Amino acid sequence: MKEATIYDIARHLGISAATVSRALNGHPGINAQTAEKVNKAALALGYQSNKFASSLRKQKSNTLGVIVPRLNSYVMSSILSGMERVANESGYNLIISQSLELERKEIENARTMFNSRVDALLISLAFDTETFDHITPFIKKKIPVVFFDRVLDHPSCTSVVIDNFKDGYEGTKHLIEQGCKKILHVTGSLQRNVYKDRLRGFEAAMREYHLDFSDENVIFTSFDNDAPQNVMEKISEMTTPPDGIFFTNDACAAGTCILLKKAGYSIPGDIAIVGFNNDPISKVVEPNLTTIHYPGIEMGEIAVQTIISHLEGNLNVNQGSTVVLRSELVVRDSSRRI
Amino acid sequence: MKEATIYDIARHLGISAATVSRALNGHPGINAQTAEKVNKAALALGYQSNKFASSLRKQKSNTLGVIVPRLNSYVMSSILSGMERVANESGYNLIISQSLELERKEIENARTMFNSRVDALLISLAFDTETFDHITPFIKKKIPVVFFDRVLDHPSCTSVVIDNFKDGYEGTKHLIEQGCKKILHVTGSLQRNVYKDRLRGFEAAMREYHLDFSDENVIFTSFDNDAPQNVMEKISEMTTPPDGIFFTNDACAAGTCILLKKAGYSIPGDIAIVGFNNDPISKVVEPNLTTIHYPGIEMGEIAVQTIISHLEGNLNVNQGSTVVLRSELVVRDSSRRI
Repeated sequence: MKEATIYDIARHLGISAATVSRALNGHPGINAQTAEKVNKAALALGYQSNKFASSLRKQKSNTLGVIVPRLNSYVMSSILSGMERVANESGYNLIISQSLELERKEIENARTMFNSRVDALLISLAFDTETFDHITPFIKKKIPVVFFDRVLDHPSCTSVVIDNFKDGYEGTKHLIEQGCKKILHVTGSLQRNVYKDRLRGFEAAMREYHLDFSDENVIFTSFDNDAPQNVMEKISEMTTPPDGIFFTNDACAAGTCILLKKAGYSIPGDIAIVGFNNDPISKVVEPNLTTIHYPGIEMGEIAVQTIISHLEGNLNVNQGSTVVLRSELVVRDSSRRI
Repeated sequence: MKEATIYDIARHLGISAATVSRALNGHPGINAQTAEKVNKAALALGYQSNKFASSLRKQKSNTLGVIVPRLNSYVMSSILSGMERVANESGYNLIISQSLELERKEIENARTMFNSRVDALLISLAFDTETFDHITPFIKKKIPVVFFDRVLDHPSCTSVVIDNFKDGYEGTKHLIEQGCKKILHVTGSLQRNVYKDRLRGFEAAMREYHLDFSDENVIFTSFDNDAPQNVMEKISEMTTPPDGIFFTNDACAAGTCILLKKAGYSIPGDIAIVGFNNDPISKVVEPNLTTIHYPGIEMGEIAVQTIISHLEGNLNVNQGSTVVLRSELVVRDSSRRI
C-alpha cells in the first residue's frame, strides 16, 4: 500500500498542505475544529507521521528507557505505573526492560537502551551489579540518568529514594518498644543501598538499646518463593527462637508468618513481626502486618517528572542530588503487644 | 562531543572499517575474539549505532507496542514479565503504555504506538472500549495485532486467551458440589470477553443443576479498593445471604472474605468462596482461596513468540486464530466443605 502523505490529507479536505502540517503538529495558529478534522482524516487515510525521520532531524526520540530488576514485583509495578502516567501525559514513550536481578542482563539492556537513543535512562539496579561501566556511555553523551529505589552514588546522576536507614531504624525500634530482645533481620543483597541502609538502621537501633547484635541476627535471602521455608529452617536450627523478626519484604514476611503459625508460634505473642513495602498482602495475612509504607507510584511519578524537567531545560539532574520521598511505619497487629 | 564513528573504532584497533561494521552487526564471518574487541572499543569510545537511520532504511523499528489496562495488577505484571523476557532475548524492545481502563486513553495510546512505527501491537482492552477504529490503521498498514486476555473477535487478529467459559463453569460447579444453592457471581464489565464468558459459564452451571438464576445473582464492580465494601453492602441488603460466592478476582475475594469473617460468617461453613487468578494473596488469606490458576507469564511469552514468528515470516497471525492456554481450578479451604 502506498503511504498516505500530508498532501493526500490536504487534497481530501480541500485545504493547504501547510495547514495540514501545522494541524498535525499542534500549531497554536490552527483552530480546534480544523485540527479535529485533519486528525480524523489522517486516521481514516492511515497517515503515519514519520517518527524515525523526525527523530533523526531533531536528534530526540521522545523515549525514556527504564530498567528494573523485575516487572512483576509489587513495588516495581507500582513505580512503573506512576512513571507511565506522567510520561504518557507529557508525550514520552517508555521502553521498559528487566534485568531479572542479573548484572549481565542489566549491561545488555543498558546497551540496547543506548543504541535505541533513548532521551534519558531510569534505572534500578540488579542484586549483584558491581560495575558502573554500562552507565558511563550515557554520562559521556550527556544523556541524563536517574537512579530510583536501588541506586548508586554518582556525582553526575540524580537519585530518587526513600530513607532506608530511618525505616530500618524505626521498624527495629518499634519491635524493641514492644518488648522484643532477640530480633532477627531478614534481608537481601548488601550490594544494594536499600538493604545495606536498612541493616545499618537495624544495627543502630539494636546498639542504642544495648541489645546483642552479631552476624547471627541477620538472615540473607533472594526473596524468591522458597524464602519463607529457608527462614523457617534457619530459625529451627537456633537454640532459642527469636521474639521479633523484621523482614525487608512483606511477601516474605507474610509467607513466614503463615509457617510460624503452623509450627505453633503465636504472632505477635511469641514472635512479633514487621514487614516492608505496605504490599496489599500485608492487610490480608492474619494478623495484619506492621510494615513500612513504600510510596511506589509517587516515586515513579517524581523520577519521570524530574527527567522531563531536565530534558526541557528547567532543571539540571547532573548534579548528583538525591530526592528522598516520605516513607513511614504503619503499625498493625503482627507486632502490637502493648 | 563529536560522535564516534566506525572509522574511529577501526583506527583505534588498526583494522578495517568493513570489519568493524560486520562485527557490530554480528556478521557470522567475524570471529568471536574480534567481535568482542570491537564491541569493547565501541563502548569505550561511546559509539552509538544510529538506530533511527537504520530503522528508516529497513522500515523496521524492532519495537513492539504493548497496551494494558493497568501496569500494576498481578495478572498484567505477570504477562508483561513474560513478554519482556521473550522480546529481550529476541532483540526487540517493548514500548509499554496503560489505558487506566479508559477507552479515550487507549485510543490515544494506540495512536502514539502507530506513529512510533512499532513493528507490531499487543493489546488487552480497557473496561469500556467499544470502538475498533483505533486498531484499523494497524490492520490497513499490515502491522500485526495480537490481542491477549481481554480480546476482540476480529478476522485479521490473533488472540491469546484462557477458556473463560470453562473456568466460569467449573468454579460454579465446584461450589454446587460443595452444597451451595444460593450462589453470587461478582464480576467486571460485560463489554469484555473475560467477564462475559465467565458469567456465561456461571449461568450454564446454575441452569444445569436447576438452581435459581436471575440478575440478582450477579454483582458488578470495577474491582477498585472499595469493591469488597460494596459487595458487603449488597449482601447486607439481601433477605437471605448467599451460601457461595464466585469472584472473578482474587484480591476482591480476599478483601470480602476478611469483611465476611468480621461480620460473623464462617468461611466456608456459612459461605463458600472461589476466586480467580491464583494471585499470591490467595495463599495468604485465611482460609486459603480456591481459585482459577491464570498462566500470566506463559500468556506473555506466547503472545510475543507468536508475533515475532509472524514478523520473521514463519507464521501468519492475520487469520483470526485463537490460542487458548490451559487454566485450571485449584481447590483450597475457602470452599472445601466435604
